[in-house]
Amino acid sequence: MISAGIIGATGYAGVELVRILLRHSEVSKLYISSVSFEGQNITDIYPNLAGQLAGKTDGVLLTADDVKQKSDIIFTALPNGLAEEYADYCVKNGKKLVDLSADFRFNLDEATFKKWYKADWKFPAVHKESVYGLPEMNRERIKKARIIGNPGCFVTSATLGLLPALKSHIVKTDTIIVDSKSGVTGAGRNPTMTNQFCECGESFSPYKVGAHRHQPEIAKNCTVAAGEPVGIVFTPHLLPMSRGIISTMYAPLADDFAEKLAGKSMEDASAAVRAMYKDFYKNEPFVRVLAAGVNPTTRVVRYSNFCDVQVYIVNDGTMLEVVSALDNMVKGAAGQAVQNMNLMFGFKESAGIDFIPPAF
Amino acid sequence: MISAGIIGATGYAGVELVRILLRHSEVSKLYISSVSFEGQNITDIYPNLAGQLAGKTDGVLLTADDVKQKSDIIFTALPNGLAEEYADYCVKNGKKLVDLSADFRFNLDEATFKKWYKADWKFPAVHKESVYGLPEMNRERIKKARIIGNPGCFVTSATLGLLPALKSHIVKTDTIIVDSKSGVTGAGRNPTMTNQFCECGESFSPYKVGAHRHQPEIAKNCTVAAGEPVGIVFTPHLLPMSRGIISTMYAPLADDFAEKLAGKSMEDASAAVRAMYKDFYKNEPFVRVLAAGVNPTTRVVRYSNFCDVQVYIVNDGTMLEVVSALDNMVKGAAGQAVQNMNLMFGFKESAGIDFIPPAF
Amino acid sequence: MISAGIIGATGYAGVELVRILLRHSEVSKLYISSVSFEGQNITDIYPNLAGQLAGKTDGVLLTADDVKQKSDIIFTALPNGLAEEYADYCVKNGKKLVDLSADFRFNLDEATFKKWYKADWKFPAVHKESVYGLPEMNRERIKKARIIGNPGCFVTSATLGLLPALKSHIVKTDTIIVDSKSGVTGAGRNPTMTNQFCECGESFSPYKVGAHRHQPEIAKNCTVAAGEPVGIVFTPHLLPMSRGIISTMYAPLADDFAEKLAGKSMEDASAAVRAMYKDFYKNEPFVRVLAAGVNPTTRVVRYSNFCDVQVYIVNDGTMLEVVSALDNMVKGAAGQAVQNMNLMFGFKESAGIDFIPPAF
Amino acid sequence: MISAGIIGATGYAGVELVRILLRHSEVSKLYISSVSFEGQNITDIYPNLAGQLAGKTDGVLLTADDVKQKSDIIFTALPNGLAEEYADYCVKNGKKLVDLSADFRFNLDEATFKKWYKADWKFPAVHKESVYGLPEMNRERIKKARIIGNPGCFVTSATLGLLPALKSHIVKTDTIIVDSKSGVTGAGRNPTMTNQFCECGESFSPYKVGAHRHQPEIAKNCTVAAGEPVGIVFTPHLLPMSRGIISTMYAPLADDFAEKLAGKSMEDASAAVRAMYKDFYKNEPFVRVLAAGVNPTTRVVRYSNFCDVQVYIVNDGTMLEVVSALDNMVKGAAGQAVQNMNLMFGFKESAGIDFIPPAF
Repeated sequence: MISAGIIGATGYAGVELVRILLRHSEVSKLYISSVSFEGQNITDIYPNLAGQLAGKTDGVLLTADDVKQKSDIIFTALPNGLAEEYADYCVKNGKKLVDLSADFRFNLDEATFKKWYKADWKFPAVHKESVYGLPEMNRERIKKARIIGNPGCFVTSATLGLLPALKSHIVKTDTIIVDSKSGVTGAGRNPTMTNQFCECGESFSPYKVGAHRHQPEIAKNCTVAAGEPVGIVFTPHLLPMSRGIISTMYAPLADDFAEKLAGKSMEDASAAVRAMYKDFYKNEPFVRVLAAGVNPTTRVVRYSNFCDVQVYIVNDGTMLEVVSALDNMVKGAAGQAVQNMNLMFGFKESAGIDFIPPAF
Repeated sequence: MISAGIIGATGYAGVELVRILLRHSEVSKLYISSVSFEGQNITDIYPNLAGQLAGKTDGVLLTADDVKQKSDIIFTALPNGLAEEYADYCVKNGKKLVDLSADFRFNLDEATFKKWYKADWKFPAVHKESVYGLPEMNRERIKKARIIGNPGCFVTSATLGLLPALKSHIVKTDTIIVDSKSGVTGAGRNPTMTNQFCECGESFSPYKVGAHRHQPEIAKNCTVAAGEPVGIVFTPHLLPMSRGIISTMYAPLADDFAEKLAGKSMEDASAAVRAMYKDFYKNEPFVRVLAAGVNPTTRVVRYSNFCDVQVYIVNDGTMLEVVSALDNMVKGAAGQAVQNMNLMFGFKESAGIDFIPPAF
Repeated sequence: MISAGIIGATGYAGVELVRILLRHSEVSKLYISSVSFEGQNITDIYPNLAGQLAGKTDGVLLTADDVKQKSDIIFTALPNGLAEEYADYCVKNGKKLVDLSADFRFNLDEATFKKWYKADWKFPAVHKESVYGLPEMNRERIKKARIIGNPGCFVTSATLGLLPALKSHIVKTDTIIVDSKSGVTGAGRNPTMTNQFCECGESFSPYKVGAHRHQPEIAKNCTVAAGEPVGIVFTPHLLPMSRGIISTMYAPLADDFAEKLAGKSMEDASAAVRAMYKDFYKNEPFVRVLAAGVNPTTRVVRYSNFCDVQVYIVNDGTMLEVVSALDNMVKGAAGQAVQNMNLMFGFKESAGIDFIPPAF
Repeated sequence: MISAGIIGATGYAGVELVRILLRHSEVSKLYISSVSFEGQNITDIYPNLAGQLAGKTDGVLLTADDVKQKSDIIFTALPNGLAEEYADYCVKNGKKLVDLSADFRFNLDEATFKKWYKADWKFPAVHKESVYGLPEMNRERIKKARIIGNPGCFVTSATLGLLPALKSHIVKTDTIIVDSKSGVTGAGRNPTMTNQFCECGESFSPYKVGAHRHQPEIAKNCTVAAGEPVGIVFTPHLLPMSRGIISTMYAPLADDFAEKLAGKSMEDASAAVRAMYKDFYKNEPFVRVLAAGVNPTTRVVRYSNFCDVQVYIVNDGTMLEVVSALDNMVKGAAGQAVQNMNLMFGFKESAGIDFIPPAF
């Protein structure tokens, strides 16, 4: 049994962590902080939690300093650029940290971070300790890590959809298109005009075309997987719903692989790739490669830690199309963070996050 | 550890039962049936369940006969009028049954059932065994019962909102208004014009004004609680959302109680009644009387077994206004059914249904 | 042809006025102002208007002073308390004004305004000029008025639902219950936590129970209609949709009228009252009393100036239940304001507002 | 003034035609038919139309034969495969027809129609009379046509987005990706499981990947525009909202054009292409090329006949990304059909369809 701290507990990712950890069988104490609501009780801000604190916390929002001192593991769910000092503290004090911001998503590549996030690193040393927390790529390293950079939500959906294809070199790597669509929780809790019900409800649009910060992170993951540079064109869109991400991805087949498929119907070619994907993910607890004829659907993964994946061969056998779906607040944020915690502490990997997605 | 059967497992209440029982620590085996999908696997109809069957079922939809024979407890989630024969079987074979239809909601009052449901009883004897499954009214009797009539969704919200006031005789009983609003899951899974996205989405309207079958059930519960006939005017409305019910209720204060409150501000008068409600429900695991200033909100109870209640004194101290909120598929259907099962078998009352409602 | 000005053109009611007046055949010039966006072009804030200005305006947001000087009629769509000075200016300069705030909704009853809106009147004289702009109550007076207080959105729905019953004295007046539900546009455009998609979407709750400012305005209208004091219990709720209001209202029948209905079925009794309503509204262009069996539905009046009304006799012939539906931004705000303008200038009453509500 | 007939008036496209034509200044009489509701009044099926028939129709749903005989122009809004006989009738009787199905979308290419729609042509001769009704491609031919094949909804959005690029040969033509997202009205009015509120609400998923019938129609249009074969990979997705389509499209730049852009920032390169697009569409009444920084948004074109387009150069100057938005029921169906009628009869092209999209 461990004590866990959440710094930034009243944002959407933060409060989702609270909800998960309150029911986690290996967490006995929970410490929470919030700059905006320090000293208040979290049940006043989130009345859904009323009566649910289960003896793990009294609900009072502490200072970040209090939280970091009392916790065996710290989750930082803060704006980008604020996690380094907590990571440094953890490294120096034998504690562990999972950061849900972008601060530790680029390992030692400060230049890329700087270019996209317009900020320097203040504690360069601590980045050497960090591991990118996508269990399907880095499980063994996560187990030994002290500092985890929890992946971006779009990035998780894109990477899990492309990983088997890239590792097996069945697609060309110069230009892969990632057309993603996210629910509104992805924008966080602070009120903005864009996220007002009457502005984004019953509507749909792209945003930050060619300029979203998850592009370099997807490209980095794909490059690692392929062992060569991968070009990514990434377009996010805002869906009129709360939770969920779908990424629809288009990658031209490598010539030799296309030749292997030559003569097959699109159904048979798709089945061949699907079998490869199923084999690749056969031991993964949270990736489901769907049966033929079933499309990934955000409703079907909502409130769960699953990423559902489907593959198609299209365009007369020249292109792989992959669709992946996940809940951006669970596998795309808080659930994956707890999955990382489970790995770091040797708990059962699915402890506390084995939610069955509701049918509706 | 018991085996549980669900007859009608592919309707919305049925599949919600499946989801809950798959994670219930006291249920080791689950048997499921569906007339519409017999022989198919439930994961084909509900892909959210893929990989989640946890060794309790292989997912195959059996016949109802198979299910009834293999199960220690049977949940019937069928159209009205079909549960009696299963109840008869259970009584004769020492099994237990929770029926989610209206068949056992009127105890021995066949006349009212007949008037509103246009059907006769075929097994009159079995009704003598039945107990109305609202734990907050009938906990001790439920514990000993073999046949439970699980309450209607609107009815649960209305009854829990009015129960303390009626039991303490602080309101007049001739005409209490129950203005209720329900999400679309309340209408079940069969496709209808009314429930098409483009018909009910971004829209709102009442239905079955003065003619909804939950009216006599609410009136019956209120009459039992008050010990005298209670008149109920009930209007259901359809909300453009999936889950949740709010009932807003208006009951004129009894003269003697209004006199007691005379001179108080509306805030103080409301606080006095709120204190009574808090005391009444102080040992209830699933009713939360909210703090002053907090209104019941369906989002805050969604995916949980809670019913949140708030009370106000309005109209210059002459009227009690009560607002209650619950998830129609959990406390209003499957969750309450499992709560009843827990009571019948002596399990912890909250076993398998202690969900924390998500913040969003 | 006249010139029209909108002060506060970038709020939701303001921009709805812009949309309507751009197509109004009697308005040749449109002048618009906005404190928040002065000097900007309205098409930058509302890209839906791009290319639609039709030669009536260049889209530049002027100062309020500019607007008031150039316009024959001024629409003030401002926060409460700011319209008086424009009304004073109009009276002194022979112009007309329709105010969409609460400033002129209480005629000479400053005390009620002060109690509910916590503000004094700065130009008491101008209130003598004002007429309450509900055409169905005050058509003839509106035609001659210079200053119009445009009714509140909830108020319009409640008043139109109760007016025939009160004028014909068929209901008791001590306590009428108005249970109202509104779309999110009712809260205006400024971003707030409450109106964030992830907070109010897929959710429902009451607000300001017993304390909403539309209560005294409904009571005032009903009192005028009945010729005696009418008690109103009013509860607003927030719907997870953009546009539309439904008010469900409960009024006990007057004893003599209940006696007249005695012996009739509820259907026949309802039909009798429906016939009265149909007769009362037979010359009204924007009130539709629905046929038996058809319930008011917000979708069916959306984007139109209609108020749909249905009536029922319930509770064994002792109570009138009325349901009314309207679009809160049209008949509940901008559409009604233009209807008032049409009356004041002798235009066809439906000019510019004869929208057919879309089916979906 | 002409008389217009709608065969299939109670489907979603049909009733949208009714709404538009009831307010069309050049249409004096409207005749409507429906197989499902023959003999009933359309206001019983669509209560939004109550009181709106404006002397153009009494609302009675006639037989198709009645409609065709009484009308100068016939709109067929029927399932695929049923329009030919009406077209034949029109050709023989000097009438005009706009068909909203796929029957006349492939001109003389029966093979493609047969492959994708699994049906033969019964009246081959009549296809020679037909013109594909996309005014931005075929305006002059439409003016002289008697039979119009009204384009598919996805197809209109994709074609208008790609047309300027293909006509000016700035993109490669082997593989263009069209990732489209549609509101639920696209699926029509018949109740299905997929379109139930609780199934598609708060959810998102692709469908018919690599197999949607709009793919060959998009490819055909693009091929005509480019003057050489164009390969299209098309993926439709279902949005949790009623109206609107966004297509996000990815086309690799032609080498010579990429060279021309070399050295420019992505902003400048995008601006150069945007200027080309603005020039291309400068005389089009219903295509708006948006200013830099403004993204197409379905809400902004809802209830209007506009198609909004934005262009980007991405992927280090090697790829054109185009986003287009339209209302699938207006520019994607009924509005475009009326635009075609206007052209055929020499009316003002925007007559009856110059709707300002509402802000919300």
